[in-house]
Amino acid sequence: MRILVVNVNTTDSMTKTIGEQARTAASPGTQIVPLTPAFGAESVEGNYESHLAAIAVMETVRSYPEPFDAVIQAGYGEHGREGLQELLSVPVVDITEAAAATAQFLGRSYSVITTLDRAVPLIEDRLLLAGLASRCASVRASGLPVLELERDPAAAVEAIAEEAVRAVEQDRAEVICLGCGGMSGLSERVVERTGVPVVDGVTAAVTIAESLVRLGLTTSKIRTYAPPRPKQFRAWPMPV
Amino acid sequence: MRILVVNVNTTDSMTKTIGEQARTAASPGTQIVPLTPAFGAESVEGNYESHLAAIAVMETVRSYPEPFDAVIQAGYGEHGREGLQELLSVPVVDITEAAAATAQFLGRSYSVITTLDRAVPLIEDRLLLAGLASRCASVRASGLPVLELERDPAAAVEAIAEEAVRAVEQDRAEVICLGCGGMSGLSERVVERTGVPVVDGVTAAVTIAESLVRLGLTTSKIRTYAPPRPKQFRAWPMPV
Amino acid sequence: MRILVVNVNTTDSMTKTIGEQARTAASPGTQIVPLTPAFGAESVEGNYESHLAAIAVMETVRSYPEPFDAVIQAGYGEHGREGLQELLSVPVVDITEAAAATAQFLGRSYSVITTLDRAVPLIEDRLLLAGLASRCASVRASGLPVLELERDPAAAVEAIAEEAVRAVEQDRAEVICLGCGGMSGLSERVVERTGVPVVDGVTAAVTIAESLVRLGLTTSKIRTYAPPRPKQFRAWPMPV
Amino acid sequence: MRILVVNVNTTDSMTKTIGEQARTAASPGTQIVPLTPAFGAESVEGNYESHLAAIAVMETVRSYPEPFDAVIQAGYGEHGREGLQELLSVPVVDITEAAAATAQFLGRSYSVITTLDRAVPLIEDRLLLAGLASRCASVRASGLPVLELERDPAAAVEAIAEEAVRAVEQDRAEVICLGCGGMSGLSERVVERTGVPVVDGVTAAVTIAESLVRLGLTTSKIRTYAPPRPKQFRAWPMPV
Amino acid sequence: MRILVVNVNTTDSMTKTIGEQARTAASPGTQIVPLTPAFGAESVEGNYESHLAAIAVMETVRSYPEPFDAVIQAGYGEHGREGLQELLSVPVVDITEAAAATAQFLGRSYSVITTLDRAVPLIEDRLLLAGLASRCASVRASGLPVLELERDPAAAVEAIAEEAVRAVEQDRAEVICLGCGGMSGLSERVVERTGVPVVDGVTAAVTIAESLVRLGLTTSKIRTYAPPRPKQFRAWPMPV
Amino acid sequence: MRILVVNVNTTDSMTKTIGEQARTAASPGTQIVPLTPAFGAESVEGNYESHLAAIAVMETVRSYPEPFDAVIQAGYGEHGREGLQELLSVPVVDITEAAAATAQFLGRSYSVITTLDRAVPLIEDRLLLAGLASRCASVRASGLPVLELERDPAAAVEAIAEEAVRAVEQDRAEVICLGCGGMSGLSERVVERTGVPVVDGVTAAVTIAESLVRLGLTTSKIRTYAPPRPKQFRAWPMPV
Repeated sequence: MRILVVNVNTTDSMTKTIGEQARTAASPGTQIVPLTPAFGAESVEGNYESHLAAIAVMETVRSYPEPFDAVIQAGYGEHGREGLQELLSVPVVDITEAAAATAQFLGRSYSVITTLDRAVPLIEDRLLLAGLASRCASVRASGLPVLELERDPAAAVEAIAEEAVRAVEQDRAEVICLGCGGMSGLSERVVERTGVPVVDGVTAAVTIAESLVRLGLTTSKIRTYAPPRPKQFRAWPMPV
Repeated sequence: MRILVVNVNTTDSMTKTIGEQARTAASPGTQIVPLTPAFGAESVEGNYESHLAAIAVMETVRSYPEPFDAVIQAGYGEHGREGLQELLSVPVVDITEAAAATAQFLGRSYSVITTLDRAVPLIEDRLLLAGLASRCASVRASGLPVLELERDPAAAVEAIAEEAVRAVEQDRAEVICLGCGGMSGLSERVVERTGVPVVDGVTAAVTIAESLVRLGLTTSKIRTYAPPRPKQFRAWPMPV
Repeated sequence: MRILVVNVNTTDSMTKTIGEQARTAASPGTQIVPLTPAFGAESVEGNYESHLAAIAVMETVRSYPEPFDAVIQAGYGEHGREGLQELLSVPVVDITEAAAATAQFLGRSYSVITTLDRAVPLIEDRLLLAGLASRCASVRASGLPVLELERDPAAAVEAIAEEAVRAVEQDRAEVICLGCGGMSGLSERVVERTGVPVVDGVTAAVTIAESLVRLGLTTSKIRTYAPPRPKQFRAWPMPV
Repeated sequence: MRILVVNVNTTDSMTKTIGEQARTAASPGTQIVPLTPAFGAESVEGNYESHLAAIAVMETVRSYPEPFDAVIQAGYGEHGREGLQELLSVPVVDITEAAAATAQFLGRSYSVITTLDRAVPLIEDRLLLAGLASRCASVRASGLPVLELERDPAAAVEAIAEEAVRAVEQDRAEVICLGCGGMSGLSERVVERTGVPVVDGVTAAVTIAESLVRLGLTTSKIRTYAPPRPKQFRAWPMPV
Repeated sequence: MRILVVNVNTTDSMTKTIGEQARTAASPGTQIVPLTPAFGAESVEGNYESHLAAIAVMETVRSYPEPFDAVIQAGYGEHGREGLQELLSVPVVDITEAAAATAQFLGRSYSVITTLDRAVPLIEDRLLLAGLASRCASVRASGLPVLELERDPAAAVEAIAEEAVRAVEQDRAEVICLGCGGMSGLSERVVERTGVPVVDGVTAAVTIAESLVRLGLTTSKIRTYAPPRPKQFRAWPMPV
Repeated sequence: MRILVVNVNTTDSMTKTIGEQARTAASPGTQIVPLTPAFGAESVEGNYESHLAAIAVMETVRSYPEPFDAVIQAGYGEHGREGLQELLSVPVVDITEAAAATAQFLGRSYSVITTLDRAVPLIEDRLLLAGLASRCASVRASGLPVLELERDPAAAVEAIAEEAVRAVEQDRAEVICLGCGGMSGLSERVVERTGVPVVDGVTAAVTIAESLVRLGLTTSKIRTYAPPRPKQFRAWPMPV
C-alpha cells in the first residue's frame, strides 16, 4: 500500500520530519511517500497561506505520477481536504480530523495545542465542519511560530507542555492533540507533564488511512465529493 | 467610494452581469469595479474549483493597481473570504453572507435557492462558519448549472421559482435568497411566485459594503484576520 | 426617505442624543425622526420595563401621523421588534441586531458591553432568537445604570472601555458592540483602548434601514409577521 | 394556598373555562382565582397582541388586592413571564413551559398542537428561551383560531386530534401538549386517537405551582429576575 | 398513593435518610416506600457502579410485591431511568432530572453541586440526554465522596456551600441543585450562603411524581419506552 | 495482539458470526477472541436488555483469564462502554462509535440503518454522547428484529437496503452504517443498491482497536474513566 503524505508548506526539512514520523506508524508493506508542494509559503500560519496551500496540495497530488492508495494532508487546521476528496476516490485523511477522531476514543474531551494564536480559529472551524467539535474542550496556542519548532525543539516542547497542562487543569481536557504537523515527536514529554494520552495527527492519520484501505472503503461520490464537472480553465494549471 | 466586485469564475460575461447588478444598488458617488480573476474555472461548482477561485480572487485583488474602499466576493458558497480579510483592512463582503444577514431582517427564516445539488453543502458550510445558519430553513438546488443561467434565463427563472415555492411551503422559509452570483435579476419573478421578499446577494453586498465604509468600520486585525506574517514563498505568485 | 428612530424610554434628552447620533450616519436626503414613547419608564433596565416599552414603542409608531419608510427601535436587548413587524410593512430594525449583524462582517466574534448586569440576559435572549448568538463571545456589563451615561460621560466611557478590554483579552472578542442606545458617541475612546472596531447600534441600524429601503425590501408577511387579525380590544388603546 | 390563574385575553368565558380546568387539578385547600386582564385583545394570536397581553397580565396581577402564593400565566407561547418574575417573589408558571416540562417526564420527545400557524413561531421561541426545545419534536397548528375552540368544540377536537396523529407518526412525538389555554378538556379524545399521553398546560401548571409552594421555593432574585429598580414612569400605570 | 423511592447504593442508612427526606415533601395520603437494592456498591461514584445500580434498581422494583403508583430513582447522574420506564407504565422520576426541571422554573440558569469530580461527566450526560442541559450553568464537585456526607455532615455542608457560591459568582447560576441523593437536608445552609433558591432532587421528585399521578399521566409506550419484547434470558434474573 | 470482541446478547451463533466478521479485518498477528456474556437476553432490543448487557459485558471482560490488548463492545447503541473504560486501561471501542467515526472520513453525512424502531433512540443517544451526532443524517429502522437477521438473511438484506436507499435519497446520507452487530456481511448488497460506501461497525472497530494499540494509546485515566474507587459490594459479583 502506498500513502502520500503531503506537507502543506514548502520547507523540505519539515516534509522530511513528517515523513519519518509517518513511517513510525506504518505497517510493514506500507510505503510512505512524503511530498512537498511545488509552490506556497515556507510555513502556513493563516488563511491566505492556507488557501494557497489547499490548492498547492491538490496540484501536488494531481501531478504525482504513480498510483497510490490514500492521501494524508499533513497540515493542522488547513483548508482543502474537501477539494482533494473531489479529485480522488481513494481515502483522504486530514491530520486535524485524524487526531480528533482518535482522541475521542481515549477520553471524554480533548484539547488541541497549536502554534500561534492566529491558528486557533482555523482549527476550530475545521473541527466544527468535520463534526468533531462537540467534545473539543479547547484549542490553545503555545505562541511559537511553526518554524520555531525546528529551530529550538527543547524550548518548543516546554511551551507546548505548559499549555497542555493548562488544558487539562482548566479546560478539563482528558486527551491532548498536538496541533501542528511539525510537532511530531514531542508526545513523550507532553505525556510526562500531563499524565494524559497525547495524539499526534500524522501517526493517527497513517493508521486511519491504512484502515480505510484495508476495509476497502473509498470516498462517497454521490454528492459533496463528486468529481469536478468537466470545464474550461483559464491559465491553470499554472505553467511549471 | 470605489468597491471592487470580484467574480469567482473566469466567464467575462458573468462578471459584466454582476457588475451591472451591483450598479443598480450603488449610491451616487460609488464606483463599482467588476473584476474577473486571471486564472480559474469558467464556473465554480464544487470544492476544487472553489479553492482555486479563493486564491485567484485574492491575487486579483492584490494586483489591482488603484486604491479602493471595499471588496465584494461575488460567489455563492465559495471559499476565501477569510484570506481576503487578512490581506486587506478595508471591508470584505461575501455575497452568501450579505444575503443571509439581510434576509434575517425581513423574516424569521430564510432559504437559499442555488444551482446544482453539489453546491448545497458548500453554502451550508459557509453559513455555519459565518454564524448565520440558525435561521436558515433550507438550502435547495434548482438543478441548473451556473452557466445555464445565462444560456436559458427563462427556463432558469422557472426552475428557481419552483424550488422557492417549495422552500416557502415545505420548509417554512419567510424570505428567499438567490444563491448564485449569476442569478441577479431574477428576483421579480420569484417574488411573484412566492409572495415573500427575495434577496439578491450582490445588491445586498453593495449596500453593506457602502454602509461599513460610511461608518468608518474596517476589519478587525487583532487575531483571525491579522495581516499575514512576512515569509518566503516558493514559486508564488505564479508568473503571469 | 424618512426613518423613525424610537427611543424605548421616556427621557427626552436621551431621545435627542440618539437622534443626533442617527443623523451622523444618515445619507443626504434621509430624514431622521426621533420619537419618545408617550408612556413608560425613564430608563429600561429589566423585563417589566422592557415589556412596557415594547407596547409603548408600538403605540408611538402607530400614532405617528405621517408616512415613513422604516423604523428603528433604539433600545438594546428590549422586547417588541416582532410586534412592530406585524404592524408594519416597512423595515423594522432593532439596534441590538443591527450592531451584531454589522460586527459579524468585521471580525470572527464580537462582544457586547452593556450597562447593568441585569441587562445581560435580555441581550443574550434577543441575540439567540435573532440567530446572531453563535459568534457572540460574551455580553458584559459595565455596572453603570443607563442614566449614568448622561450624568457622568467621562466615568462611563472608562468603565465601558475597561470592560471592552476584558472582552478582547479574556473572551477573544474581535469586535465590540456598544450595548445601549445611550452609548452613542463613546466609540472613539473604546477603539483607542482596545484596538478593535467598535460598532454603535444606532448608526449601524440607520445604514441597514436605508439599505433595505433602497433595495426595495419589506418585511415578509407570510407567517410570523402577518398583520394582526381584526379583533375586539378592551380598554385599548388607552385613552391619552 | 391561593393561585392566581391569569388569562391572557379579555374573553371572560375563556377565563371561566380555564379556571374550571385549573380547579380539576388543584389539591384540597388550594384556591384557584381566575383573572381576566382589564385591557387587551379578545384573543391573542400574534406578537402585537401578545406583547400587550404581557403588560396587561402584569398590571392585573399587580392590582390584585389580596395575598397569593403563586401565579399561572395561562397563555400558550405568550410574552411576559420574565416580567412577572421580576415583580413577584412567589412562583410564576407559564403554561407553555409547564406542559413541556411535564411532557419530558413521560416520553423522549413531545409535540405541541396549537391553533393558528402564526402561533407556531411564538411557541418555538418560548421553548427555546426556556431551555425546553431540544426534545420538542414539532409545534403544529390545527388551523383553528382561538375563539373557534369555544364556538365549535366538536370540530376543534377533531382538527387537533388529526394534527396530533401526524405529530406522532411523522415527527416521532411520544407525548402531545395541547397548545392553547382554551384547549383544556380536549385531552381525552386526543389520547384516544393517538395512544400517547396528552398534557394540558393549565392543569400541569397548577400541580407545578403547588409543588413549588409546598417545597418553599421562590423565584431567584439574584440577577435576571431582580425586582425592578425604583424609577419614574410617564403616564403609567394608565388611568382606569 | 404509593411511591417507591429507590436508592442506587446498598447503604441502608442512606436509604433511610432519603426516605425521610422524601416524606417531608409528600402529601397527606402518599405513602413513601424507601428501597435498597439487593446487590451493588455501597456508594455509586462512577460508570461501572452506576451501570450495576441501573440493573439493581430495576430488579428491586420488579420484585416489589405490592402495587405502586410511581417510582423515584434516587441517584444523581445515574444510568437506568430509561429501562425502568420500559418495565413500568406508572411514572418514573429521576432525581437529577426532577431537580433540573424544578430549578428552571425559579431562575434563568442553575448549577449542580455534586460530590466527586468524576461524577460531573455522568451528570452532564444525563442532563444532555434529558433535554435539560441548555440552561445548566455548570456542574461542580465539592470533592467529597458520597459516604463522607454521612460521616461528617458539618464539613460536607461547608464544602458544598463554598462551591455553590462559586457557581453563583463565577458561572452566573441563579439556582443551585444539590447533586447527590445523600445531600438532602443541606439546603438551608446553602441558601444562607448563596442567597439563591436551592433545589433538592428527592423532594422535587416526590412532588413531580405526585403531580403526574394526580393528572392521570403515565409513560408513553409508543416507541422508546415500549415494554420489552418477550424473549429468552440466560442466567437472569440471578438467583437470590 | 489479542482483541476481545464481546457480543452483547447471549446467542452463541451471533457471537460466532461477529467473531468471523472481525477476523476478516484483523491484521496478521492479531488474535480475535469472541466472547458471549454469561447472562442476559438472547437479543438486545431496548433499554432494559441493554442495561443488563452493559453489566454482563463488563463481568465477561473482568473474568477473562488471559491478558489482552483491546476490547470491542459489539452491540449497536448499547449502554456500557464508559464502564468498561473505567475498568480497563487498554482501548475500548464501541461498534456504534467506530462505524460513525469511520463514516465521517468518507462522506459529509452518514445514516445508520438498524433493526427495530425502538433501537433508534438508543443509537441517537449514544451518538450524541460520543460527539458524533452532528453529521448523522438519520437513524432508520428496517423493522426487522435482531434474530431475524440470522433466520432469513435474504429478506433482511433487502429490507435494510431499501431503508438505506431512503436515507441516501431523502436524508442526504452519503455513507451508510450497518446498525447492528449481526448485520456484518450484508455490506455488499447495500453498496450495490445505494452506490455509497457502507461501513460495518465490527470491522471498523477492529481496525481502530488495532490502530490505538499500535500507536501505544490507552484510555485517559484522569477523570471520567478513572478506575473505580475501592469499595464494598453487596451480593456482587453474582455467584456463577
